[in-house]
Amino acid sequence: MEQATVRPGGMTMKGEIRLRRGVDHVLGQVKDILDDVDDERLEEALSALEHAQRVFLYGAGRSGLVARAFAIRLMHLGYQTFVIGETITAPVAKGDVVLLISGSGETYPVVMTAEIAKNIGATVVSITHNQKTGIAALSDIVLALPAKRPGPEQEQLAPLGTLFESATWILLDGFVADLMVRTGQTEVAMRKRHATLE
Amino acid sequence: MEQATVRPGGMTMKGEIRLRRGVDHVLGQVKDILDDVDDERLEEALSALEHAQRVFLYGAGRSGLVARAFAIRLMHLGYQTFVIGETITAPVAKGDVVLLISGSGETYPVVMTAEIAKNIGATVVSITHNQKTGIAALSDIVLALPAKRPGPEQEQLAPLGTLFESATWILLDGFVADLMVRTGQTEVAMRKRHATLE
Amino acid sequence: MEQATVRPGGMTMKGEIRLRRGVDHVLGQVKDILDDVDDERLEEALSALEHAQRVFLYGAGRSGLVARAFAIRLMHLGYQTFVIGETITAPVAKGDVVLLISGSGETYPVVMTAEIAKNIGATVVSITHNQKTGIAALSDIVLALPAKRPGPEQEQLAPLGTLFESATWILLDGFVADLMVRTGQTEVAMRKRHATLE
Amino acid sequence: MEQATVRPGGMTMKGEIRLRRGVDHVLGQVKDILDDVDDERLEEALSALEHAQRVFLYGAGRSGLVARAFAIRLMHLGYQTFVIGETITAPVAKGDVVLLISGSGETYPVVMTAEIAKNIGATVVSITHNQKTGIAALSDIVLALPAKRPGPEQEQLAPLGTLFESATWILLDGFVADLMVRTGQTEVAMRKRHATLE
Repeated sequence: MEQATVRPGGMTMKGEIRLRRGVDHVLGQVKDILDDVDDERLEEALSALEHAQRVFLYGAGRSGLVARAFAIRLMHLGYQTFVIGETITAPVAKGDVVLLISGSGETYPVVMTAEIAKNIGATVVSITHNQKTGIAALSDIVLALPAKRPGPEQEQLAPLGTLFESATWILLDGFVADLMVRTGQTEVAMRKRHATLE
Repeated sequence: MEQATVRPGGMTMKGEIRLRRGVDHVLGQVKDILDDVDDERLEEALSALEHAQRVFLYGAGRSGLVARAFAIRLMHLGYQTFVIGETITAPVAKGDVVLLISGSGETYPVVMTAEIAKNIGATVVSITHNQKTGIAALSDIVLALPAKRPGPEQEQLAPLGTLFESATWILLDGFVADLMVRTGQTEVAMRKRHATLE
Repeated sequence: MEQATVRPGGMTMKGEIRLRRGVDHVLGQVKDILDDVDDERLEEALSALEHAQRVFLYGAGRSGLVARAFAIRLMHLGYQTFVIGETITAPVAKGDVVLLISGSGETYPVVMTAEIAKNIGATVVSITHNQKTGIAALSDIVLALPAKRPGPEQEQLAPLGTLFESATWILLDGFVADLMVRTGQTEVAMRKRHATLE
Repeated sequence: MEQATVRPGGMTMKGEIRLRRGVDHVLGQVKDILDDVDDERLEEALSALEHAQRVFLYGAGRSGLVARAFAIRLMHLGYQTFVIGETITAPVAKGDVVLLISGSGETYPVVMTAEIAKNIGATVVSITHNQKTGIAALSDIVLALPAKRPGPEQEQLAPLGTLFESATWILLDGFVADLMVRTGQTEVAMRKRHATLE
């Protein structure tokens, strides 16, 4: 029923284009989403991280994987870093920075974590869809990453939380570049902190 | 050379520009890297996944987190999916697809996994820097994602494996969009497979 | 102040005795705790597991590690097994067995998991200190493992949840021995299901 | 040969006895195995841990879960503790203690970890079946936990590595009791280090 142009090696034009359309859609939307993030909030989040002694990170599902990827870089930058939910963590204390990632901002364990962290007096930074989510209300600093133009194209090319998660991943790459300068770290120094055993 | 303009809220023009320079560098480089990935190899990898009964994924460190994020989407698409190294996995068997992610392609446990999987008769797909890495030699299908223009800019804005990991993350978003059509899945069906308890 | 007898190799009588006192205390208490577990409840739990298609397991902290160790054995026995909180899980459905481990029975995510599982119509089996804990109230089958004789000796030789966790570990060894017969599995068959890649 | 007496609630005497036979077999064998562990080696291991600044732990599969359970207690005791293979770890350095758990002592990543740790100048402590395993040869201190009387009873009541894993779990409970005194820790102090967020 479907029409496709078969090319050498069994490749169809259709398949190829669809994958590339997905990639281009995500890259374009991520750029749009990140362009709109408020500069002052970014500066506040960077400043909180710059002066943090210890950083705790948490997210559920794919957002949790994005959190862990950033946690590894924070460790490379010399921070004492804890991923909530791993075997070894520590009690959050006043003065710690707690970074939470949740698009919906209503995932229960993330909201609960925000509550506990806020009560303890930690600085809560959240990355979430907008200012009205459950974790936003409990956060000192909210980075809002709204999905742009939801609709059939997004459903087909970037299902579920794809745009939020990919935008957060790339945003945190930017955080690393900025924190390297703020904390005086070089790639060489970061490489040395890379785990010998992994 | 850069001039810092202090703005309300303690934000400096300099900090803001640096974070955005990091984001733009990564987005631009990721696009360049992915544009160069060979279409026939992509088609082969998509076809292998389309016809797989079971998919095993593995990577170390941040590459492992990218692998897990894709594993979650494969589960949403209805695949029996296993992340090597998690509590519950299964023995790899002939006919399974094993997807390995390693920029250097020489990380020991990843190379060992490639060897074992190849000996068992699984289809080994690797995402790695180039055709000459250790895992490439052991793979049926190699997706080469070479870092572009290494140099001081990359060291400062995208340290260590950042470009490889971010490019792989976005590439796999494209895989999901394509596999949705190949396997006849919609966002609604995927949402239903989303874990009730997480 | 303390007196110790130095023996060859730098070993002191004191150190040796203390470690062995800890081991003996735990082994003795575990035996007492398990002797008191209600036989009918054990039979109900074994029967629920015997007839389960899929088993979900969950616990926080060290109890979660005990749950995962049992999950690996259930996989060896041929069950479709999911550890809640790992990368790959699945939605709990009516008819699934959900095994929860929590001494206090009040750890929030465990209670929440019990609630969701109960609402879905899964069979909830909990291992907890007594019938009055939060998860006990939400469970179809409760295995009560009360700590015996709390006091200074326990604080010094088996701090925090040690006795509950160790008793649960050993109890689940017993479950494996029993389920082998119920499901007609041998050690040889279990070894074959052992992960090739780990 | 066995006679099953059906009792109210569908319980059979046979089922009940089988579970309890498994529990009793494991408890008895664990006691025998641990009674035979060399006192001088235990003292050396305790002394190494007592004076360690940082402790790294590693094991594969169920042995890895035993390692993590001990890691949590070391954290409660105030040690800087890292589980190799988790998101956040650190490079092993001269003077660190690396504790490896592997019955066979030949699991590849564990042997590799032993090699790297030894080359770096860390103190390698291994818990393994005997002095001849691969990791024993690379260790400064070997705690040998030989399985007793292998045969049909063990295959049926304690399949695969059950006795080794359960004996190691209980042995490390003894380590905790002893290290509490050596490091001057009380249950109250340990409870305070218990993670606020888990």
